[in-house]
Amino acid sequence: MIPRNEINDKSETRSKILAAKEEKGMTFSDIAEQVGGDKTFLASATYDAASMTKDDAMAFAEVLDLGRDVVEELQKPPMKGQGEPTIPSDPCLYRFYEVPQVYGPAMKALIHEEFGDGIMSAIDFEVSVDKEPHPEGDHVVITYDGKFLPYKRW
Amino acid sequence: MIPRNEINDKSETRSKILAAKEEKGMTFSDIAEQVGGDKTFLASATYDAASMTKDDAMAFAEVLDLGRDVVEELQKPPMKGQGEPTIPSDPCLYRFYEVPQVYGPAMKALIHEEFGDGIMSAIDFEVSVDKEPHPEGDHVVITYDGKFLPYKRW
Amino acid sequence: MIPRNEINDKSETRSKILAAKEEKGMTFSDIAEQVGGDKTFLASATYDAASMTKDDAMAFAEVLDLGRDVVEELQKPPMKGQGEPTIPSDPCLYRFYEVPQVYGPAMKALIHEEFGDGIMSAIDFEVSVDKEPHPEGDHVVITYDGKFLPYKRW
Amino acid sequence: MIPRNEINDKSETRSKILAAKEEKGMTFSDIAEQVGGDKTFLASATYDAASMTKDDAMAFAEVLDLGRDVVEELQKPPMKGQGEPTIPSDPCLYRFYEVPQVYGPAMKALIHEEFGDGIMSAIDFEVSVDKEPHPEGDHVVITYDGKFLPYKRW
Amino acid sequence: MIPRNEINDKSETRSKILAAKEEKGMTFSDIAEQVGGDKTFLASATYDAASMTKDDAMAFAEVLDLGRDVVEELQKPPMKGQGEPTIPSDPCLYRFYEVPQVYGPAMKALIHEEFGDGIMSAIDFEVSVDKEPHPEGDHVVITYDGKFLPYKRW
Amino acid sequence: MIPRNEINDKSETRSKILAAKEEKGMTFSDIAEQVGGDKTFLASATYDAASMTKDDAMAFAEVLDLGRDVVEELQKPPMKGQGEPTIPSDPCLYRFYEVPQVYGPAMKALIHEEFGDGIMSAIDFEVSVDKEPHPEGDHVVITYDGKFLPYKRW
Amino acid sequence: MIPRNEINDKSETRSKILAAKEEKGMTFSDIAEQVGGDKTFLASATYDAASMTKDDAMAFAEVLDLGRDVVEELQKPPMKGQGEPTIPSDPCLYRFYEVPQVYGPAMKALIHEEFGDGIMSAIDFEVSVDKEPHPEGDHVVITYDGKFLPYKRW
Amino acid sequence: MIPRNEINDKSETRSKILAAKEEKGMTFSDIAEQVGGDKTFLASATYDAASMTKDDAMAFAEVLDLGRDVVEELQKPPMKGQGEPTIPSDPCLYRFYEVPQVYGPAMKALIHEEFGDGIMSAIDFEVSVDKEPHPEGDHVVITYDGKFLPYKRW
Amino acid sequence: MIPRNEINDKSETRSKILAAKEEKGMTFSDIAEQVGGDKTFLASATYDAASMTKDDAMAFAEVLDLGRDVVEELQKPPMKGQGEPTIPSDPCLYRFYEVPQVYGPAMKALIHEEFGDGIMSAIDFEVSVDKEPHPEGDHVVITYDGKFLPYKRW
Amino acid sequence: MIPRNEINDKSETRSKILAAKEEKGMTFSDIAEQVGGDKTFLASATYDAASMTKDDAMAFAEVLDLGRDVVEELQKPPMKGQGEPTIPSDPCLYRFYEVPQVYGPAMKALIHEEFGDGIMSAIDFEVSVDKEPHPEGDHVVITYDGKFLPYKRW
Repeated sequence: MIPRNEINDKSETRSKILAAKEEKGMTFSDIAEQVGGDKTFLASATYDAASMTKDDAMAFAEVLDLGRDVVEELQKPPMKGQGEPTIPSDPCLYRFYEVPQVYGPAMKALIHEEFGDGIMSAIDFEVSVDKEPHPEGDHVVITYDGKFLPYKRW
Repeated sequence: MIPRNEINDKSETRSKILAAKEEKGMTFSDIAEQVGGDKTFLASATYDAASMTKDDAMAFAEVLDLGRDVVEELQKPPMKGQGEPTIPSDPCLYRFYEVPQVYGPAMKALIHEEFGDGIMSAIDFEVSVDKEPHPEGDHVVITYDGKFLPYKRW
Repeated sequence: MIPRNEINDKSETRSKILAAKEEKGMTFSDIAEQVGGDKTFLASATYDAASMTKDDAMAFAEVLDLGRDVVEELQKPPMKGQGEPTIPSDPCLYRFYEVPQVYGPAMKALIHEEFGDGIMSAIDFEVSVDKEPHPEGDHVVITYDGKFLPYKRW
Repeated sequence: MIPRNEINDKSETRSKILAAKEEKGMTFSDIAEQVGGDKTFLASATYDAASMTKDDAMAFAEVLDLGRDVVEELQKPPMKGQGEPTIPSDPCLYRFYEVPQVYGPAMKALIHEEFGDGIMSAIDFEVSVDKEPHPEGDHVVITYDGKFLPYKRW
Repeated sequence: MIPRNEINDKSETRSKILAAKEEKGMTFSDIAEQVGGDKTFLASATYDAASMTKDDAMAFAEVLDLGRDVVEELQKPPMKGQGEPTIPSDPCLYRFYEVPQVYGPAMKALIHEEFGDGIMSAIDFEVSVDKEPHPEGDHVVITYDGKFLPYKRW
Repeated sequence: MIPRNEINDKSETRSKILAAKEEKGMTFSDIAEQVGGDKTFLASATYDAASMTKDDAMAFAEVLDLGRDVVEELQKPPMKGQGEPTIPSDPCLYRFYEVPQVYGPAMKALIHEEFGDGIMSAIDFEVSVDKEPHPEGDHVVITYDGKFLPYKRW
Repeated sequence: MIPRNEINDKSETRSKILAAKEEKGMTFSDIAEQVGGDKTFLASATYDAASMTKDDAMAFAEVLDLGRDVVEELQKPPMKGQGEPTIPSDPCLYRFYEVPQVYGPAMKALIHEEFGDGIMSAIDFEVSVDKEPHPEGDHVVITYDGKFLPYKRW
Repeated sequence: MIPRNEINDKSETRSKILAAKEEKGMTFSDIAEQVGGDKTFLASATYDAASMTKDDAMAFAEVLDLGRDVVEELQKPPMKGQGEPTIPSDPCLYRFYEVPQVYGPAMKALIHEEFGDGIMSAIDFEVSVDKEPHPEGDHVVITYDGKFLPYKRW
Repeated sequence: MIPRNEINDKSETRSKILAAKEEKGMTFSDIAEQVGGDKTFLASATYDAASMTKDDAMAFAEVLDLGRDVVEELQKPPMKGQGEPTIPSDPCLYRFYEVPQVYGPAMKALIHEEFGDGIMSAIDFEVSVDKEPHPEGDHVVITYDGKFLPYKRW
Repeated sequence: MIPRNEINDKSETRSKILAAKEEKGMTFSDIAEQVGGDKTFLASATYDAASMTKDDAMAFAEVLDLGRDVVEELQKPPMKGQGEPTIPSDPCLYRFYEVPQVYGPAMKALIHEEFGDGIMSAIDFEVSVDKEPHPEGDHVVITYDGKFLPYKRW
């Protein structure tokens, strides 16, 4: 398992994946269905948020007719995030930060009240983005599911 | 409907609610059950993230034996967030920001892919914090459920 | 609907549009008149603030004798804003921020007073920039028109 | 005309005005109607964004049964803004900044295209916040109306 | 388990502990020996970095002749960190940040090389500060011992 | 001993080392064993955190079949850190900062209590990253070992 | 009047002007004399702080034997400032900021005292940099001359 | 000559001066005329930007019927500026920063062109704020007059 | 040796020292002469930059007729610096930062050239501020004298 | 005297000087001896902190066999500092900032006490970096020698 050293490598991989997707007219959902995987995880691997097992990387690359280099790159631990922790101005991204900006203290209070002193893991964790039909307009439903990690006392 | 003007008012209200909760040994969950409401919403109203209807505020205050001033304050629109958008150092709070820091671009990609150009509303929105039992340790499950808002084209 | 992945794509599109405009000596106003659209919306689509329907993109590109690639790019959701929320030093841009810096709290107070706890949507929203003749010098009139979104109580 | 020197003075004045408004159950709209003024301007004078003429200050104070000290304070030039130019986290305030974050370059382009090299004044300027009924929900309409100031060439 | 709501509470508790320590002339090491605990953990509980079990809090308070309120406060989850993630100017504190500033990428590379894509937990974690005699001057030896958390793939 | 002047030089050297490592399928641990050195130090020299003696640089380069230019570059003092002191968003790196964010004041208190007014040197210093097997999952053990430097009084 | 869209355009223009100046050995003062203009204004047009009329741009370009593209670029409204409002480290530039940092509140107090609630325009404005001989060393005299803009009351 | 140590001291002094000015209905201009001094310098001494000689401090205090403590405080070197170099949001103050933000590079170019490598001193320096009548509205004229300091070459 | 825990303690101590100095009309230089110490070190101990031995603290306090509490406080390790590393706006302080801002890279180059890879210690270090008479005006001479610390290679 | 306009020019010059130095195996000290100059000044001219007289630039270039372009560039006023005032993370550079961070207020107090209200000039100034042998390890001695500039009172 070798760490990434060239930031450009990964963005090149992403470009190839997105270009292939566009050419084939496939969504992450289509690909997920074909490889039997999860669309949010596939998008995460594409956007520098996750690394894949060899088998999953091969299946993913195969659907998109991509080569060995993509398979290799997808298995490496990415540099995650955008350098420093910063809040982006793009409104679609910003809302993911507005929620904890507003509701964070309440969420923290409930976690401590129901679980004790600790946190929701963001590593032993999965996220999903779903579309739920509503009569007045579809809803975006995002689920954060992380193991509770109690603070160790030693 | 009158805007809040004194930042201290609300924190005084919060102190009263938390002191009463502690004295009575009640959790937000206990209170929610008793008033027939939602624990995450009650915590949000307590921590400056939401305002309540008069009826809900009265029910909430009554359970905690709190007075008219609390009922009044709970109905006013709070100043939400902590001044500027900033990422907190407390690890329990920080994880709520680490998730979009890492997975944000993938989440944005999926929203655009499945809904088009737009965002998940953080206003026509609800959040819940739940405990899910797992054999290797309980999970914290946080759900963001917001209406999809497409960008208007004019 | 596929998300943008290469920041350069869009700026290339913008360059083509602006060069074509300059060559033809057309303003956004001229183009808007010709395609029967809104000049502020056309400028927004040019400057990464909006995506267009296929028909509108085709009409826009046609007036400027631009090709299929521009039509494709104009339909994709742009990455909006300049990375992080920041206040620019250019005086023409800065004034758009000085107004809420000075009048923001009063504007918020009025919104809460007249509408209740909620916000003006910046998504279900349109903006216009107009020139109004005045005896002592023309005025710039900017109108923000967004749906009121009340905070959900759940 | 004497500059403000104590930041607290003005906030004390604001507290008195808001308390009086709450006690009398009057909105800025009610007051504006009674004194024959503009509700947005009255809110601006309350929230450190404007100073008033002696007559206007007296009329405003009278409606609220406030004393000479309020009348004096309302005439002084306030320290405007919140110290440094910063973008607030409160969602209602944040949207006023999200608009120029997204649409600012397009707005600048149109101003230069239609007026030349210059800016919309934020001093020789007025702002209004209005409620417009729509079948699918009321709209918040905010209008910025400022004199165009061309850059001097010397 | 009730979340902390008043920042001052905890600092009051800390003041009491430190005053009692000073009066009794005891170090954290002395106390740790007496209660059979770990000095770094006791210091952590004092400086808002950890919460204690009821038994440990009672033993700690007893050694210092402190009351029930201290026992209660020590059990509550503290607000950890200093608000935003920031690097302090005090040289003793600064060096703890200079190390990852300089050696962080190498440490990350080794973790990925030897463990795979994941992190050292800072929750399922303990830290110790020790004094090691050296002929040319004592050494400060700080040990971070955290469970490796592999990124989940789903 | 000549200071580095071109930032690119060093990153070019790093690229060569990492490419050679990948090609040969060697980890820092493998190389350390072969040259009789320390894996954390070798990784530090690779990632701009340390300079090497001529002998060590030659041995390191030889194992990887790298040339004279790499040997030269490895001996020069690197520009250490990433420009300004900043906290990175990558979760693996971030945890190295979260520890002093949370435990820093306790660590400082213990250093002063046991050593007096001074600091742990980050220069007369070594760091190691180790893997310790645990029944419930391996641990990452990071050790900071620096000479205590007392503040001079003059 | 068309807005600038490529940041590089203008810097290319600046390079041409400065190279021509250097080659001809002319100062802004020499050029100003020759074209009958103001040296500070010419420097401002060169350094992205001003746009010129067609006639002035032609005269300026002619003196320096520069072509039509420079004439065109000099007429366009530049993007003014360096992105965000920031204070530069270059000591010559820094002093321009140190003055208002130290004397700003006194200057504001005098403006309000003598003119009322309003500002010195930085648009309907001119600046000059002059050299004044003094027995103990020449003085730099910088004059800011801007129209007073009173805040509108509406 | 003793340095200031309590930030509050000076602000207390300022409050006394401003209150006395307001009570007596005098402007800085009136006082300057009476003591035969400069209004901008008197305002600077009031707003923490300058210290006075004993004689000047006595004359200033006498006009305002202020006591010995004010005389003492006015002679001490103030802590100048607002902590860190920051750009304020108040529009009247902001314009003092907008000018160098826009024209700074041109001003620097002229200083180097006419004086050589060096700066305008902000210490061996005086500033004045004047009102100049113009047919279309009075002008604010601010003059910075500082000795040119050439960089020493050694 | 007990760490400081209350920030106010130290500032209270400083106030007492400075008030006593002012009352007695003594400078740090006078005191240093009387106690046989160094004026810069005494000022450092006063301004939170150094702790003293018991004997030195007693001698210092005695000259100023200060009590046991001051003696105790002066021996404790202070929290050094102003929270985060920041550059102050006060011009006298700012120049201490302008020097490394301008000359830092040259200073670093010389240290590496003459000593190798390492730093000037700021702990095993002393600073002095001296006045040197010059025909054209006295000079401030500041000397930083710190042990060279070579980076350890392990 | 023409201001620099291309940031790259100067870095190109620096690269040539450093490459020539490395090729010839000369230190700044060697060159200073040969041209009869000061090593710290030569390093400053190399690292964008100083400009040279024509004679000095020619002597410097000659020793290194560099051409006319280097001679020209060395005479131009450089853009000094790194853009904004920021504190660097490289430990060798950082220590130059840690000193005023810790000792700055004491240094300011002594300057005011011994010289009055004013500053140490950083322009009419020279800096030197020297190596002083000590039995327990060489010392780095850095001397700042600047003219005292008293604040003008007008």
